[in-house]
Amino acid sequence: MRLDTPIASVAGRRCLVTGGLGFIGANLALALARAGAEVVVIDACYPRHGANPFNLEAEGGERVRQVRADLADAPARAVLDGVELVFNLAGQVSHVDSMTDPLFDLDVNTRSQVAFLEALRWASPGARVVFTSTRQLFGRPRYLPVDEEHPVNPVDVNGITKHATEQFHRLYHEVHGLRTTVVRLTNVFGPRQRLRDDFQGFLPIFIRRALLGQPISLFGDGSQERDCLYVDDVVDCLVRAALVDDAVGEVFNVGNDEHLSLRMIAEHIVGAAGSGTVETVPWPPDRDAIDIGSYFGDSSKAKRMLGWAPQTGFRDGIERTVAFYRAHLDRYL
Amino acid sequence: MRLDTPIASVAGRRCLVTGGLGFIGANLALALARAGAEVVVIDACYPRHGANPFNLEAEGGERVRQVRADLADAPARAVLDGVELVFNLAGQVSHVDSMTDPLFDLDVNTRSQVAFLEALRWASPGARVVFTSTRQLFGRPRYLPVDEEHPVNPVDVNGITKHATEQFHRLYHEVHGLRTTVVRLTNVFGPRQRLRDDFQGFLPIFIRRALLGQPISLFGDGSQERDCLYVDDVVDCLVRAALVDDAVGEVFNVGNDEHLSLRMIAEHIVGAAGSGTVETVPWPPDRDAIDIGSYFGDSSKAKRMLGWAPQTGFRDGIERTVAFYRAHLDRYL
Repeated sequence: MRLDTPIASVAGRRCLVTGGLGFIGANLALALARAGAEVVVIDACYPRHGANPFNLEAEGGERVRQVRADLADAPARAVLDGVELVFNLAGQVSHVDSMTDPLFDLDVNTRSQVAFLEALRWASPGARVVFTSTRQLFGRPRYLPVDEEHPVNPVDVNGITKHATEQFHRLYHEVHGLRTTVVRLTNVFGPRQRLRDDFQGFLPIFIRRALLGQPISLFGDGSQERDCLYVDDVVDCLVRAALVDDAVGEVFNVGNDEHLSLRMIAEHIVGAAGSGTVETVPWPPDRDAIDIGSYFGDSSKAKRMLGWAPQTGFRDGIERTVAFYRAHLDRYL
Repeated sequence: MRLDTPIASVAGRRCLVTGGLGFIGANLALALARAGAEVVVIDACYPRHGANPFNLEAEGGERVRQVRADLADAPARAVLDGVELVFNLAGQVSHVDSMTDPLFDLDVNTRSQVAFLEALRWASPGARVVFTSTRQLFGRPRYLPVDEEHPVNPVDVNGITKHATEQFHRLYHEVHGLRTTVVRLTNVFGPRQRLRDDFQGFLPIFIRRALLGQPISLFGDGSQERDCLYVDDVVDCLVRAALVDDAVGEVFNVGNDEHLSLRMIAEHIVGAAGSGTVETVPWPPDRDAIDIGSYFGDSSKAKRMLGWAPQTGFRDGIERTVAFYRAHLDRYL
């Protein structure tokens, strides 16, 4: 593998992307297909999730095989034989929804994942598996930047179920020899993200409101800092995680050294969109309780072991993102 | 509440014991009933679990109402109204079985528990809830004795599912105001424990083999240390955890300052039984991988906050245990 262009190493390899009709999954599936990989995506297409058939209507998408199934079900098991690289992105990602329907979140994010790992270890025990988790499982940070040793303290159901599934990936490596890696992502943005509603994190909300010429409301003074990643940098990171042997059995916090206040983020988005406004409102009492303050991750381990570094600054990424949605906004609302 | 006799405070109160036909649950249910509480037990009576109808055939048992149901099912929900003290002991406890059937372990230990917490928070939001977890979720200790700050590192499916459910109890306190407490137990022994097979920890195996005049096999030299608790001391601890207001939202590691090597434990058991022998065998390769070395817990927090301390030394407890099984061994094999 040439670490400067890892995606070239996937040519001819059998890749599986779970959640492959969603935001990150579709960008990854397209990149893999364009690089000459044999790509299958599995997606349950649950309502309110990120799956969007339009996401694969792009160059490379015509070579991606689509399977509509929950990971626990037979159609998903039927495509596991001979798979070499598994990008395991399927999941319920809404923290709000996880609190209103905890059993569904547990079923999708943990139960189906355990069924999938069980099937995979028998069907393709040599596969490399990269599971995407979330920085949300850290809750309110005890220190910054947050590294892999930071205590886990989920503040919602989604954080508990994702953390349990991280541990199943680790356990299936330690006990069954499955070659798994966990990547905990920070806030990701870019083309193909669901903009329709307010349940998938703050970035799509900001982007939608700016594009529609609406005000973006910041709680308090908007000074809380975040790190954001452009989706192409995440795709690069996941491919590296699947190709680097030393990453087996490891967990990586993947963030960005570019820290921006929520106010700066909103202003950049409004600037790129050329529409929308930024306003501040007092903290609503019910949100105050779940505010986690500033968050940014320490990506040193990913940089050191995967040779990864983000290539796209926030302003560049937002300009590309806005350009994409200008052309296709009706597909995402 | 008088902290010297906390069990007296339960008189007339509505208590629910999940897993109440099992080892600890039945001892607790009998103690509560004898103290004048209104006691309902829920038990799914899954095969290979600890449920044993004979466990409640004892003084007080005639006043215990029994409901046979999984915690996720309607009959369990139907008894939640007006319940004041919930002792939530139901679960799959076999670490071996959790590895051969991970989905069943997840369903019983996490999914049914989440369904139960959801039902409980609507039916009896003011109830006190004590959830029993396991020291096994720490894996191989990084330091001894193991306190509540020790990192969690489950080495099997059961550890992951029990830890997730601990976190659901914490979350339902923090977000929904349910008054939950988590108690992580070390190795418990005493009357009414399932002795039939080898899936429930080393103590019942040792006790059964000694009573049947068989050799107890120790891996290596048997020098690994453990702390053990007699079941009456655990019952006392759980009752205190349910009655002390400051315990709400807290986690307690409950162990014993009496540390004994596995060899000493086996020899005490053989001595009390008057039969059996102790032998050492080399570590089997497949067990070597999961050996966690010595383990004992730090119970300072439980002592300080609950006013609890174990009252029964290992030798005394084993003599009482052996006396019980001498009279009833056929009911436990």
